[in-house]
Amino acid sequence: MLDANAKGVFVIAPTPFTEDGALDLHSADSMVDAYLAAGASGLTILGIMGEAPKLDAAESALFVRRVLARVAGRVPVVVGVSSPGFASMKALAQEARAAGAAGVMVAPTPGLKGDDAVVAYCQQAMDICGDLPFVLQDYPQQTGITLTTAMLARLLADPRLVMLKAEDWPGLDKLSAIRRAEAAGTQRRIAILGGNGGQFLCEELARGADGIMTGYAFPEMLVGVCALMAKGERDAAQDLFDRHLPLIRTELQPGLGLAVRKYVLQQRGIIASAALRAPGPRLSPETRAEVDYLLARISQG
Amino acid sequence: MLDANAKGVFVIAPTPFTEDGALDLHSADSMVDAYLAAGASGLTILGIMGEAPKLDAAESALFVRRVLARVAGRVPVVVGVSSPGFASMKALAQEARAAGAAGVMVAPTPGLKGDDAVVAYCQQAMDICGDLPFVLQDYPQQTGITLTTAMLARLLADPRLVMLKAEDWPGLDKLSAIRRAEAAGTQRRIAILGGNGGQFLCEELARGADGIMTGYAFPEMLVGVCALMAKGERDAAQDLFDRHLPLIRTELQPGLGLAVRKYVLQQRGIIASAALRAPGPRLSPETRAEVDYLLARISQG
Amino acid sequence: MLDANAKGVFVIAPTPFTEDGALDLHSADSMVDAYLAAGASGLTILGIMGEAPKLDAAESALFVRRVLARVAGRVPVVVGVSSPGFASMKALAQEARAAGAAGVMVAPTPGLKGDDAVVAYCQQAMDICGDLPFVLQDYPQQTGITLTTAMLARLLADPRLVMLKAEDWPGLDKLSAIRRAEAAGTQRRIAILGGNGGQFLCEELARGADGIMTGYAFPEMLVGVCALMAKGERDAAQDLFDRHLPLIRTELQPGLGLAVRKYVLQQRGIIASAALRAPGPRLSPETRAEVDYLLARISQG
Amino acid sequence: MLDANAKGVFVIAPTPFTEDGALDLHSADSMVDAYLAAGASGLTILGIMGEAPKLDAAESALFVRRVLARVAGRVPVVVGVSSPGFASMKALAQEARAAGAAGVMVAPTPGLKGDDAVVAYCQQAMDICGDLPFVLQDYPQQTGITLTTAMLARLLADPRLVMLKAEDWPGLDKLSAIRRAEAAGTQRRIAILGGNGGQFLCEELARGADGIMTGYAFPEMLVGVCALMAKGERDAAQDLFDRHLPLIRTELQPGLGLAVRKYVLQQRGIIASAALRAPGPRLSPETRAEVDYLLARISQG
Repeated sequence: MLDANAKGVFVIAPTPFTEDGALDLHSADSMVDAYLAAGASGLTILGIMGEAPKLDAAESALFVRRVLARVAGRVPVVVGVSSPGFASMKALAQEARAAGAAGVMVAPTPGLKGDDAVVAYCQQAMDICGDLPFVLQDYPQQTGITLTTAMLARLLADPRLVMLKAEDWPGLDKLSAIRRAEAAGTQRRIAILGGNGGQFLCEELARGADGIMTGYAFPEMLVGVCALMAKGERDAAQDLFDRHLPLIRTELQPGLGLAVRKYVLQQRGIIASAALRAPGPRLSPETRAEVDYLLARISQG
Repeated sequence: MLDANAKGVFVIAPTPFTEDGALDLHSADSMVDAYLAAGASGLTILGIMGEAPKLDAAESALFVRRVLARVAGRVPVVVGVSSPGFASMKALAQEARAAGAAGVMVAPTPGLKGDDAVVAYCQQAMDICGDLPFVLQDYPQQTGITLTTAMLARLLADPRLVMLKAEDWPGLDKLSAIRRAEAAGTQRRIAILGGNGGQFLCEELARGADGIMTGYAFPEMLVGVCALMAKGERDAAQDLFDRHLPLIRTELQPGLGLAVRKYVLQQRGIIASAALRAPGPRLSPETRAEVDYLLARISQG
Repeated sequence: MLDANAKGVFVIAPTPFTEDGALDLHSADSMVDAYLAAGASGLTILGIMGEAPKLDAAESALFVRRVLARVAGRVPVVVGVSSPGFASMKALAQEARAAGAAGVMVAPTPGLKGDDAVVAYCQQAMDICGDLPFVLQDYPQQTGITLTTAMLARLLADPRLVMLKAEDWPGLDKLSAIRRAEAAGTQRRIAILGGNGGQFLCEELARGADGIMTGYAFPEMLVGVCALMAKGERDAAQDLFDRHLPLIRTELQPGLGLAVRKYVLQQRGIIASAALRAPGPRLSPETRAEVDYLLARISQG
Repeated sequence: MLDANAKGVFVIAPTPFTEDGALDLHSADSMVDAYLAAGASGLTILGIMGEAPKLDAAESALFVRRVLARVAGRVPVVVGVSSPGFASMKALAQEARAAGAAGVMVAPTPGLKGDDAVVAYCQQAMDICGDLPFVLQDYPQQTGITLTTAMLARLLADPRLVMLKAEDWPGLDKLSAIRRAEAAGTQRRIAILGGNGGQFLCEELARGADGIMTGYAFPEMLVGVCALMAKGERDAAQDLFDRHLPLIRTELQPGLGLAVRKYVLQQRGIIASAALRAPGPRLSPETRAEVDYLLARISQG
């Protein structure tokens, strides 16, 4: 279901809440429906940039099961299981497996020192997660951990590692280096999905990415760009992408971006409320007006 | 039970695990007994430097209830409830209250920007935690958050704030400034307990601290120093302190210190295993020998 | 020459080097000419994101004098004088003044703790820099220092503070708050120029910024957007901006962005070499091709 | 003069200033005299933790020449040449060489990503510094850079690398690992001097360090401990060390420690003024009294 030949758009789903902060499972359903209708090849839930740390264990389990039930096997679902301790990582992975997840995703824990320590941690994490396909999240802006191509080559000895979520920034040359190593036959293939809110989608695909894993609020644009790039229509892909870049940029703001994204999803009728769990930022009227303006421009094409 | 006149040694208890990583509730009991026998005026559990993030919610609740049952009201118990989200902070605080905790402790969440944002966060946290006495942990080395005397003065408008765990480093001048403001009548009294593993215990007390909240593995030394300082026997206090400083220093090592502390507690028969939950450091044979040497020197007086 | 009514585009000039790393003063001349031809209202040199720390004191002085001689008073030049010590800040400021600079720019030094310490540092810096108009750089992503509107209000007591380089990110609501305070009469006017590579130029202007201070390699676009916004042509401004956003995004990459910017300036014939002083990144052939592609799209309009 | 057999105490000299912030070359002389009288085996100047960044290039050169002239070849002098750019590193190294330095010391520049990048940077730095013996400073608390034993093994291919200033914290197991690799014949010998203010001096020596490079204000104690350890008198060494640990601890406070150290050196008559260049901390009367108390205890033995 999830292997090194995976490709397309894996949408990172936020966790919807009601206005008063309760888990909103109805919105979880409508969100799943919208993402699948948009052409998603997969979904990812409980990622590290979302509000997963604001859920308790029971809520996490509830949300995982609800999303998986709604997806009903139509696309693979990846569950983020990064955790300060291996005990809770194991519990989350088992929960994910029981609910029917296609794979788990882990980012190396902050504070690891030196290449060997990072490699060892990832190897342990794969053992902890059992036999589920493993997605490695390379996200140094958040974790402070560097993953080099040499380290990845070592990790590929484990067949469970099937996918790299590549969001080092800047990271395009690393992507090229991995594909060169595969072409040279020194390393087996791994599926690579880009990230970083989609802000370098065309370049990532041109460098050899198989798609993207991000939560940008218009996944149909991501799907469309992937399709155009696959057909070799670079200019058309860039044209489509450029129309969305102002909003992508707005969703990428540190601390504020998730609130923008949820606001857009709400405006599009995909979730019921834009609320974040406290403590979290709220959009000012001026910011909402700026987003509305960008939405209007997008809808005008 | 816990108010602005609190004083003495509040021992920060680690979370004991068995060799295979299970919560060790028998050791929780023996640990409580040992701390009370050493003269502790209070206990603190689930602090941010310990292994609290490696517990799931059920384990946290179990541990809190076990410790409080064993203490049985003989001393006040403070429960750390810092959390990325207010929903889980509230749940933890309610759990603590139900189990009989005397107060809750919160450190401002990382990422707050500017004095006003920090003050607002702390005020919200007090509201979230309800009517339990509130201990504010000032620990910028871990949180990245600065708490100035001016900010503390604003927070003291809320009567629930009864205690400051003062572990800014260096922070002695701040301690003096708070006591000067109280003496000048511009600010009401707050109990201040030092921290940072005890490494500046004598100076903290001389500057006006009411005691210390730390987990150093020989709490009876902390109790002894407090008693000598209270009697004005500065030199004797320093003599006693100096004998322990090499071990305090060894327990303060980032990343490794908790493993040293648990090893000492195990060697002293206070907990059954020195194990940390994975991933966590292990002491090398050389390090254990170094600690053994320091323990021998302490026991020789 | 530089006061609270300043406006327009202040171009942050990079420091041009020859291929072998020597200061390239001929390119300094051609760069000044190009920026003025593009409609710059001012220039800024020796900013903290450039390669100023790689110049020795003699080179800095040489570069400052060369740029100021070439500008010859046609537009105000701001010189960045941030420094770990006040002695060298003073020396730089005196050098800048002697060469004819219109103002100096300082970002608070990393490590300051609490609002009061930041305010005190900025006040001292203004005293150190003498009677030159003072530009405060608010750039927390680089300095780790928060500047709130309340802090700015205190700093405005000093008449030398005439301009804010506003590049907190996200920072648009702060910009609005400053303008609201001015409108309410509680605070005197300060010139505000946006930053962050120009990525929120339209929004900054709509929120009340007087222009932008950034080094984006097409300053004529920045000038054009400012002119369109001043005429109230919001859609036309956004259209012009959007055509450049893919390249702005590419210039914003941490660690790599300056190399991209110098490459573009070289391709445009504005400086002779794209070289950075070692150690510094080099663009891969793939990255250069990506930039070439974006340049072709921009030139096609 | 400086090779892999170096040993003993290399004192890191602060930069003395007069009360009004001028470079105090007379105190440079008296300081050199005091350090040599205390038994120093070498000196280190312009280290990254001192006030070197507050000197301009002319002052740095003046200070280097003055110290080397006073030392007059009696012990080797190491000059810190870490710099954001290789051009200034090269200039500093040439200056050091011309003045008669025995070696240069470099810490990897912050921001390097992954083992290979760090190794490459250090190799380039050795080339930049020419044929002077090279001291590698391993100080991750300040640089954020990890140096593993595997990386050191690669760097040892360059014969110019003769000494490691080992101040990773905790870092004792790394020290043991290096000595084990040498004993196993897989790696050539390197001189290792400890650091971190001396707080683990006895342990460092027992693990195989050849001495220590630090600026603790009583270098004669460091010399004494090295001598006792060399004679196998572990208990006597620890007794001597323990008497100083409270002051070592006080000198280690981040931001404040250097002010404490200079105050002690002034009280001992080694430098004329305890002044730091602005901006820098000042000791409160309470802090000075605390240091005075510790000094009195040390002098009483």
